Order: sequence, then C-alpha cells, then structure tokens
Amino acid sequence: MDIIEIIEKKRDGHTLTKEDIHFFITKYVSGEIKDYQASALLMAIYIRGMNDEETSILTEEMRVSGDVLDLSDIPGVKVDKHSTGGVGDKVSLILGPMIASLGAHLAKMSGRGLGHTGGTLDKLESIPHMRINLTEEEFKAQVKKIGIAIIGQNEKLDPADKKLYALRDVTGTVSSIPLIASSIMSKKLASGTDAILLDVKYGSGAFMKTIEDAKKLATTMVNIGKRLNKDVKAEVTDMSEPLGMAIGNNLEIKEVIKTLQNNGPKDLTDLCVDSGAILLKQAKIFDNEEEAKVHLRENLKNGKAFNKFLEFVEAQGGDISYILHPEKFEVSKYLIPIYANKDGYISKLDALTIGISSMRLGGGRETLDDVIDMSAGIVLNKKVGDKVSKGEILCTLHTNKTDVEEIKENVLNAFEISDEKIILKNQHILIS
Amino acid sequence: MDIIEIIEKKRDGHTLTKEDIHFFITKYVSGEIKDYQASALLMAIYIRGMNDEETSILTEEMRVSGDVLDLSDIPGVKVDKHSTGGVGDKVSLILGPMIASLGAHLAKMSGRGLGHTGGTLDKLESIPHMRINLTEEEFKAQVKKIGIAIIGQNEKLDPADKKLYALRDVTGTVSSIPLIASSIMSKKLASGTDAILLDVKYGSGAFMKTIEDAKKLATTMVNIGKRLNKDVKAEVTDMSEPLGMAIGNNLEIKEVIKTLQNNGPKDLTDLCVDSGAILLKQAKIFDNEEEAKVHLRENLKNGKAFNKFLEFVEAQGGDISYILHPEKFEVSKYLIPIYANKDGYISKLDALTIGISSMRLGGGRETLDDVIDMSAGIVLNKKVGDKVSKGEILCTLHTNKTDVEEIKENVLNAFEISDEKIILKNQHILIS
Repeated sequence: MDIIEIIEKKRDGHTLTKEDIHFFITKYVSGEIKDYQASALLMAIYIRGMNDEETSILTEEMRVSGDVLDLSDIPGVKVDKHSTGGVGDKVSLILGPMIASLGAHLAKMSGRGLGHTGGTLDKLESIPHMRINLTEEEFKAQVKKIGIAIIGQNEKLDPADKKLYALRDVTGTVSSIPLIASSIMSKKLASGTDAILLDVKYGSGAFMKTIEDAKKLATTMVNIGKRLNKDVKAEVTDMSEPLGMAIGNNLEIKEVIKTLQNNGPKDLTDLCVDSGAILLKQAKIFDNEEEAKVHLRENLKNGKAFNKFLEFVEAQGGDISYILHPEKFEVSKYLIPIYANKDGYISKLDALTIGISSMRLGGGRETLDDVIDMSAGIVLNKKVGDKVSKGEILCTLHTNKTDVEEIKENVLNAFEISDEKIILKNQHILIS
Repeated sequence: MDIIEIIEKKRDGHTLTKEDIHFFITKYVSGEIKDYQASALLMAIYIRGMNDEETSILTEEMRVSGDVLDLSDIPGVKVDKHSTGGVGDKVSLILGPMIASLGAHLAKMSGRGLGHTGGTLDKLESIPHMRINLTEEEFKAQVKKIGIAIIGQNEKLDPADKKLYALRDVTGTVSSIPLIASSIMSKKLASGTDAILLDVKYGSGAFMKTIEDAKKLATTMVNIGKRLNKDVKAEVTDMSEPLGMAIGNNLEIKEVIKTLQNNGPKDLTDLCVDSGAILLKQAKIFDNEEEAKVHLRENLKNGKAFNKFLEFVEAQGGDISYILHPEKFEVSKYLIPIYANKDGYISKLDALTIGISSMRLGGGRETLDDVIDMSAGIVLNKKVGDKVSKGEILCTLHTNKTDVEEIKENVLNAFEISDEKIILKNQHILIS
C-alpha cells in the first residue's frame, strides 16, 4: 500500500477502504506520511466527499490512534454532551449539574475558545483556583462520586485529530462535513462514555451558517454513532443571536449561577431543560422526556441543581465563595452602555458581531496565544422580539480597554430595530 | 492576501487572479508558503482545473521565478524542441544536427530518464567525455558558432518548477493538464528561445495514454504560447510502440548515427524530417515545409547532417572516434535473442513493457539515484505490421545482468502476433 495511490483514489472520486484509512491514519500519526501528503488527501476528501461508511471508519481509526479512556468502573450509563460552539453558550455548565442532581454521570472533556466562540474551559477558569487538568484517576473518581467532572482534553487521546485539525486550519480544509464529524466524534468516543448528546448550532454565530448544513452534520454524526454502536443523538439549534444574556467568561459564570438558582433567561433555561431531558433518557434514568423535564425544573427550584454545581466546583478545587457571592467576581474598569437610537422592536441581533466584539473587548482569543480578560464581555438587555425605546440600554460592554469606539459602533449595528414585532422562530430539531 | 483564501477560492471552483498566482509562486519559492499549503492548492487545481488564462499566468509566474536566459546576441530565430517522452525517442539528437546543418540555431536544455522513458542527457553521456554542463557563456557561444547545443537544465532557471514538480510527484498531483503544461512551458520559455516545437506523445509508452488527452495538453501549451506571444507549435504523435529499433543509451546513439547516415528506421527518419521541417519554418529558414523536407533529406544523403553531429559532439568535448567507429561503444556481456513462438504478423508491440524491460536490464533508472548501464537495452528486429515466422528473432536483449528470465517472458509477451496483417495508423497531428 502506498499513500500516493490512496490520494489518487480519493482524488478521482472513489471510495476509500478500511485498509486505506487505517494506513493513512497510523502512518500519519507515526510521521511516515508527511503533512504535504495528508493535506493533499484532505483537499481531495473536502472536494470529493466521503460516504457515511468512510466517515465512520475514519472516526474509528482516529479514535484508536492514541489512548482510549475506560470508564467501565463507574456504575450506570456515562453520558457526554458536546456543542459545536457559539456565542454565550454556557449550556454544559448548567445542564451538567442539573442532570447529575438527578443521578446521571457526566464525564466531559472540553475545549478552549477561539475567535468569536467561547470555550467551557476558559469559563471554568474564571472561577479562582478551579482545576481543569485532573488526572485520569481523579477524573474517574469524581464522576463516580458526584456524577460530574469537566476537564481539558487528555493529551494522549486522539493524536490523529490533533495533527489533522492543526493541518486543516492552515490548508483551507476546515469546513468539510466528514472531516468535522470525524474530528468531533473521534474525540468524544475516545473519552469512553456510553451516550452522547450533540448540539449542532446553526446561524451567524455558529460554524454552520445554515440549518441545512447543520442538519447534514448532525445526521452524519448520528450515523457514525449507529455504525459504531454508540447511543448518539443530536439537536440542531439556533445560534443567530447569542444564547442567554451574558457573553464573556466570568459574566457567563454569573449567568450560570443565576440560571441554576432558577432565575436565568428563558431561552437558556429552556434549552438546558430540553437537552437535560434527552440526556436523562439516554442515561436510562427516565423513560420519557416529559417526566424528566418536570424533575429538572423541580431541581432548579429546590436548589438541588445549584448545590450540585457547588459540589462540582469544590471537587475541582474552585473557590465556592465566588459561587455563593458572585459579586466577588472581578468587574471590568469600564462599563459602557449602548443605547437604542430609535423606538421599535429588536428584529435581529447578530451573534457573530457580538462574539467578535466580546473577543475584542478582551473576553476572547484572536490567536491561541492570546490571554483572556476574564471580566470582559457584553451583557445584553434586549434580544430579538423585545420592545425598545430610543435611549434605552440595549446592552453593556465590559472591558478594561480604552480605545473601543469602533466596537461600540459595531455592537450598536448588531441590533436591528424595526417597527413590527418579530418573533424568532427557533427551530429545534432532534436527530436520532 | 492570504494563502488560505487562495486555496479556498480554487477549492470552491473559482478562477484565480494574476495577483493570487503571483502571491502563491513568489511566496512558495521564498518558503513563506509551506509545502502542505502548496499541496492542498495543487490538489484543488487538479480537481477543479484551470482555464487557459490561469494556466498562462501560472506559466509566466513560474518562468520569472528565477533567472531567464537571454539569447539575443545569437543572430536569427533561436528554436527549441521538446518531447513529452517515450521509449526509444532519440529524435532531438537527430533533427538537431539536421536543422543546424541548414542554418537553424537549436538551443536546447534536456532532462534525464526515469522509469520506462529515456532521457536525452543520459544518451549523450554514453558518448565518452561528452559534457552536458556547459556554462551559460559556453552554451550561447556554441549555439552561435555551430547552430546547436544540448545541455542539462540550468539550476538557476525556474526554481518554482523544481519545487512544484518534486511536490506533485509525492502528492498524487502529477497528471493534471494545467500543471503539466505550465511545468513544461515555464522551463522552455525561461531558456530564452524564440520558437518552440513540442512533440506530445500518446499511447502505452507515453505519459498521456490517449490521443484525446495528448491533444488537450498540446492545445493548452500552444494556447499558452499565444497568450505569451511565443511561436509555439505542437505535434501529437504515437508512442504505442517504441520509436525506431533501439532502446537503451549507447544503443540509441548508434541508431542516431545510422539515421544521420541516411540508414535509419523509416518511422524515426520520417518523424525527424517532419519535425525538422516544422522547425525550419518556425526558424524562418524556409517558407514552406515541403521545400524544407527536400533539403533535410538531401542533407541526410550528402553527409552534412552527420558532419554537424560530429561538430556538435566535438564542441561539447565528446570523443568523436566513437561516432566515426560506433563498434567502439561498449557492448553488454549478454546478448539474448527473443524468438517468435508462432507465425504471423506483429499486431501489437507494447512500448511501456519494452521501456520497463530495458530499464530492468540496466538501461534506465527506477529511482533518480540509480546508475545507468549505458550498454544495456533492447534492439528490435520486428515492429507492428512486420511478418514473422516461428523461431525468428523478434528482438535482442542487451544486458550485463544474469537473472533475466522474467524480463525475457515480459518482452516476449509485449509482442502480439496475429494471422492478419495490421498496419499501425500513426495519427500525426499538428496543433498551432
């Protein structure tokens, strides 16, 4: 077998075999196949595509390219949840404690934010002393004991994905559904859980700009799960406007706390309840989602979900005095209100602009080396469908930077105000 | 401008601009653009194609990526000739002296053989002491003085082609018409001649397997010439069976000598006369090709073409006693006749098999590091259309190797013998 033959096969639109894909992944990870050969193959895959069988084989070969976590000594169904990322998406940090408070075991590895999207790890690190680098033993022991742990990617898992992802990033081969699907799924499957719920976002703030592409990606990943005998479900949800009201790391943690105290924004709470119910059914704790939803809402009211969050933060070394007294979190030097320039209803609130603006205020990374300002970001007062009067505050910028005139203008322009009330039709589709 | 944007543009099937291509070539040669990015772009070009304008721009940017030879102090029209390569193709070594004997100036840089195809430089080097690495000044002075010089590629010309060619070779992106055309044409144009005749081969022994692909490549290269204001013509000629009777380095030089003494095989002599006539018209020495042909055949008969060859060999330091007494050339230890196993007519003689067999007998290179045995190769006795009786010699293997049973069998199988006489219809097309 020869990498050039494999490249030529895909180049000419043929289907790769298990042997072809195994050869590629093992020899690429070992360094025998060079980056310039891998990038030629990635481009051929990008343009020619891969069918579901090829994509599943690629996923499986990537999954076993490094260590694979064994969670079998934790009792019950171990679940995982993954969002393709967006602006203000702090769902995992809320629904994790919610389902753990009902007996589920969430064993989750998360990533960092880049560009306009935030990352769960960064948000967690805005809690002083929070540890996101538990050992494998600590991770498993914590899931077993309290039902939830959220940590950084284990460096020994899925080295194929690390190499391929870095290469795709610099060779124009990122936005390919089989490559995205295999990247996400191989990592998730290597972390050893039994059931996975995916949240595939669509809209301006998401990686997939259209609902059609999001559905395709979701279906591809669910099909990988079927072929590899894993319980994988996927929601397709809207990311045309930010999720919740807070964007930025400790700002989002404060919203997580409010939501777990049953005082959060409706869109965010509803999504957490919906996703939580699916996960609880996957965890075989409830037979039907409606019953699960009742219990989830109850645990928001009775404080059990919030208490589980405290337990989780404490277990990973975080300072819970911040969770109990969120006013302790560092606040940016400059709080800059953005005022509506006319009366009407918010008809659009562009998630991408808000995400990029939050990043520029200090709340995110433009490149992987940038240092995040945990207090920076944007807190919304108005979202799509809300009535607004000229001079009312649309949102507040939080920043320690001074030269922000351009950002102010961009944020103002992210809001569209029209005379008629528009209700955002959130399509929420479950693919399973 | 950003290489990723350029890659994405071609990936999505759009047309690259002059600025895009200039950016790519200059930054790739300087090392700012990496091999893994270039190979992704090459694959996108391979699959999406390039129109004639893009291909011409690519050619021009490659041409000026290094030194460009200036032949303007040589009087008259400087001509060049290039074959896409085949088995037994020694045409340049014959028609060069033929046209120079009629006043043309051939300034040619050649390549080495690889795989089943031979290389003009290797053949020349089978003449003891022949120098193929003249300085630029020696090269120009010789063309000016005797009308012909054939040397190796000047390392300072077209560095873009050297890098791209090496990369294409290991990334499955060789057989793309715009990439082949720009590679050939940029090198030819950088060597500074005024008119170029291309011989695009098709058939089993050629790079282009079908006449359709050969016509496409020829047309693309002629169109590049038109766009860049160069007189470029292209012949499309057959390479389904070897050209002439000799395959292998000094075996071919002996056939060159015989042909220049007007005693060569008909197919070879005819092609040299045809191509020579086109070149003499391009060189503005004759107005019409028929008149040129008469003079070319005359100079074969009267010894002027052969004398020009002697002059050429002597000018480049070669030992002309070998040219005058070809029996001086080293002869292989083993001469192995291959006998016909039935009566009939040769209906097929597979050039690829003969080329590979010659290489395995020692006459060629499997990899660029292999050392060639100048005496090894195959001398044919029969070609397509010839009558043969069982037990007659089809050809003779020349080799210094012993274990050649498999090669003998392959060579025998390269001949197909049928009951009916088949005449090979050589399509010979001129594209201009």
